Amino acid sequence: MPKPQKHVFVCTQNRAEGHPRGSCAQKGCAEVMNEFMNQIQANNLFDKIGLTNTGCMGPCMLGASVLVYPEGVMYGQVKKEDVKTIIDEHLLGDQPVERLIVPAEVW
Amino acid sequence: MPKPQKHVFVCTQNRAEGHPRGSCAQKGCAEVMNEFMNQIQANNLFDKIGLTNTGCMGPCMLGASVLVYPEGVMYGQVKKEDVKTIIDEHLLGDQPVERLIVPAEVW
Repeated sequence: MPKPQKHVFVCTQNRAEGHPRGSCAQKGCAEVMNEFMNQIQANNLFDKIGLTNTGCMGPCMLGASVLVYPEGVMYGQVKKEDVKTIIDEHLLGDQPVERLIVPAEVW
Repeated sequence: MPKPQKHVFVCTQNRAEGHPRGSCAQKGCAEVMNEFMNQIQANNLFDKIGLTNTGCMGPCMLGASVLVYPEGVMYGQVKKEDVKTIIDEHLLGDQPVERLIVPAEVW
């Protein structure tokens, strides 16, 4: 991809059922990742938004975790339904979605 | 992890032998990832440097790919031996390692 204006990293870490940390996979990260991809494709945002899946970024208890650079804004408990809001308000509108940002002690 | 001053993303994508795109795995990304982890541990840099493995970031032909935010600097053909240089000069010294940066048409 070309260097994007905003780069979205979606944790897609999986862990075995019963693992004490849980994982973003158990919290629906695949749906979140797919929704970002679908929205980026449907609106032809490839030149503005980069999208990359990642391993664990740390705040497993608040998954699904979504990190946006260059700002370094970490979103937690992201659901499929939040993706359009993140795209419209933050990635295109440059206003981070405050209600989804993880607490400062987490990130 | 706490919000890092620099966040290093190492592509660890693998593909089957003979795949036309190749992959960073075939180009030694596991060694690069391990070397970052070892150096960060040995020098206790957890509070300054974040480290995350990722899926494909695009420039497979120039793997192993290493991306550093918040600057958005993409390094290509990174070898284990380059890791200490990236840490010392860029992550701690704030001077990107020019010889490793991918061409502008790639990123």
